[in-house]
Amino acid sequence: MESLDQQTITTSEVVQKATLAKQAAPRLSLLTTEQKNTALLLIADALIEETPSILTANAEDLHLGRKNGTSDSLLDRIALNEHRIAAMAEGLRQVVALPDPVGDILEQTTRPNGLNITKIRVPIGVIGIIYEARPNVTVDAAALCLKTGNAVVLRGGSAALSSNRRIVEVLHEALTRSDIPADSLQLIEDPDRSSVDQMLKLNGLLDVLIPRGGHSLIQNVVKNSTVPVIETGAGICHTYIDETADFQMALQIAINAKVQRPSVCNSMETMLVHERFAEQHLASIAEQFIANNVELRGNKQAQALFSAIKPASDEDWNTEYSDYILNIRIVSSLDEALQHIRLHGTQHSECIVTTNEANAERFLQEVDAAAVYHNASTRFTDGFEFGFGAEIGISTQKLHARGPMGLPALTSTKFRVLGNGQIRG
Amino acid sequence: MESLDQQTITTSEVVQKATLAKQAAPRLSLLTTEQKNTALLLIADALIEETPSILTANAEDLHLGRKNGTSDSLLDRIALNEHRIAAMAEGLRQVVALPDPVGDILEQTTRPNGLNITKIRVPIGVIGIIYEARPNVTVDAAALCLKTGNAVVLRGGSAALSSNRRIVEVLHEALTRSDIPADSLQLIEDPDRSSVDQMLKLNGLLDVLIPRGGHSLIQNVVKNSTVPVIETGAGICHTYIDETADFQMALQIAINAKVQRPSVCNSMETMLVHERFAEQHLASIAEQFIANNVELRGNKQAQALFSAIKPASDEDWNTEYSDYILNIRIVSSLDEALQHIRLHGTQHSECIVTTNEANAERFLQEVDAAAVYHNASTRFTDGFEFGFGAEIGISTQKLHARGPMGLPALTSTKFRVLGNGQIRG
Repeated sequence: MESLDQQTITTSEVVQKATLAKQAAPRLSLLTTEQKNTALLLIADALIEETPSILTANAEDLHLGRKNGTSDSLLDRIALNEHRIAAMAEGLRQVVALPDPVGDILEQTTRPNGLNITKIRVPIGVIGIIYEARPNVTVDAAALCLKTGNAVVLRGGSAALSSNRRIVEVLHEALTRSDIPADSLQLIEDPDRSSVDQMLKLNGLLDVLIPRGGHSLIQNVVKNSTVPVIETGAGICHTYIDETADFQMALQIAINAKVQRPSVCNSMETMLVHERFAEQHLASIAEQFIANNVELRGNKQAQALFSAIKPASDEDWNTEYSDYILNIRIVSSLDEALQHIRLHGTQHSECIVTTNEANAERFLQEVDAAAVYHNASTRFTDGFEFGFGAEIGISTQKLHARGPMGLPALTSTKFRVLGNGQIRG
Repeated sequence: MESLDQQTITTSEVVQKATLAKQAAPRLSLLTTEQKNTALLLIADALIEETPSILTANAEDLHLGRKNGTSDSLLDRIALNEHRIAAMAEGLRQVVALPDPVGDILEQTTRPNGLNITKIRVPIGVIGIIYEARPNVTVDAAALCLKTGNAVVLRGGSAALSSNRRIVEVLHEALTRSDIPADSLQLIEDPDRSSVDQMLKLNGLLDVLIPRGGHSLIQNVVKNSTVPVIETGAGICHTYIDETADFQMALQIAINAKVQRPSVCNSMETMLVHERFAEQHLASIAEQFIANNVELRGNKQAQALFSAIKPASDEDWNTEYSDYILNIRIVSSLDEALQHIRLHGTQHSECIVTTNEANAERFLQEVDAAAVYHNASTRFTDGFEFGFGAEIGISTQKLHARGPMGLPALTSTKFRVLGNGQIRG
């Protein structure tokens, strides 16, 4: 005879915790904005108060990381300090200030038969987030999900496990003093990759999975998940400098798109330049890139115009460097630029710099991307810059949400149909 | 050395046709509403004109089907006649009359830095539709996709292959006389199941897959596709008759929800009845179901009130009969009804019949479904009844679209960002 303990053991941590989250979800969907905001403020205060214990847990992760030879850049992403924890708390207060989309009426109609139909925003239910070893994502993701009335199952990179565990304990303690059921926030602690694999197949318990991180993490989720996924991330972004571009404007936009923060997805990887503009100005722009420590690679025409440009390989045009490296391709027409973007872009953010309105309009219409720009840096593709506030990521897929995802991206809809006895004839 | 022919052979029909569709998609996205409507009307006329040749092709399918022992109900779904083809053409004219969502402005804002940001509706790109042997779906799906500027790759059940092939030929001929590239409409003719398997993995060529058909077809797509899927279909819908329901209203709604068209997803499978209402009225309602040839199954309390009710098995509560069979469960409270729906519902359409406004509000809020009803038949969950016109299906998932999907469900969005040299600080 199977004992209760044996039964419990056969159910994995992932299934157990996702089940608890699912059970909590209906209560969450009924909370008022005030109840949710109160909880978020309690969490913000608790993070500040518990800074010492969080730093202690963080030190364990860093110690273990150093012992295991973790890279400095990864250690830096894991590392917390008072300033970074204060920034997390500040992020929570910003989420409090955002409007709550739940309950928003999107459509309302009365049909000829008298049926009153209202389409309203509702929480999605249970959201799974799979991310890298970044303790700040633990707080961000939890806050955005709670504000939208969603339960959340977090699976962060194991290199930050101690930090995440302590942070979630602090959040749970704060939630017990609020109206939000603590079960609505779950952290998967199993560091084995199989816990990720399990999450990918949790149809019925998870309503959506959002991967946040590098290319391989995201592709693993996209390729293997049977739960619906919101794909985020990859950005091979282009800036096309047209024949009639203003030189100063083109220079500033190009430099900004590349060097203001090369590591992020909306930075430029390839600059396309019309040959007539290039003949006059490429050298001046290239010099500025060199002055900003950007390595330049390009096609033959580009190399012919500026000798420090190395040859670009076929692979280079398809690479998201996220680094101080830039491809430059001289093109003979807008059509060639459009074709290049079609072949090599990731439908993230694409820009044309031009004074020719007809060319601008063609670019804006024909380029298929989440954000298309005329005369502005692609670096603006961001929830804060678009006025949405904190974002859960930038969607690079076409379903549900595209581009920076504000709080509404974490909601679904429901039709409320009010009748007085209507039947279908 | 590999010859060109051998190279061609190694690329499957699915990849070839999806590639052609993808190449056609950018041109489609630029068409005006008038261009698309003109093409749809040309197609409608062509279908009427080519009725004889379509019926000839259809007769081949029916002949082969009879030889293979295909069931009468499947043969009926495949069978075309002048009336059914005229109905397809009429459906096309209705799609012409619907507003074109492409280009609709959803949000517009000017940021403090002067950036002008507009969120507009754009086509999704290439839509894959996997469906059963129903030639009418070939026309419906093609029309809805073309109207929204999407290319489409159709893979219908092989039992209707001759019909589908002739219909698509007719559509192609009509498209060549229009501004829509004929390549935007592709039919996969390979009857082997492997062609479906290939479509499920066509990331990069297909932007979304929509399965239309029975449970196993849909689940195969949901479970195995790496392309984003819009799940449609399954409906285990409940009608809860509350203690204070009006008897006549409850009777009419319940009968309508079950027998007006039992085969569809928004018909009722289980009726939940409050015990106090049941004591007075269950027998009268049950008699009406019996008079309508509905087999009744129920829990013990239901059986005690009406002897013709057979015992319901555990499985029955989770079964979408799509037939003249109904489960009846007597419950002692609204809470018990809500709990039953949580455990056994498919989040499709759920109804409460009551005169108690507080109970109605709790039901509408707490039931998690695409459509929640107060005092009306669940049979209204339908694109036409909701005022959206023709629908591509009823989404039972929470992302992108939920409930009846009108034309906007076949669109994505794009941010157009206009600047005058803005860079990020």
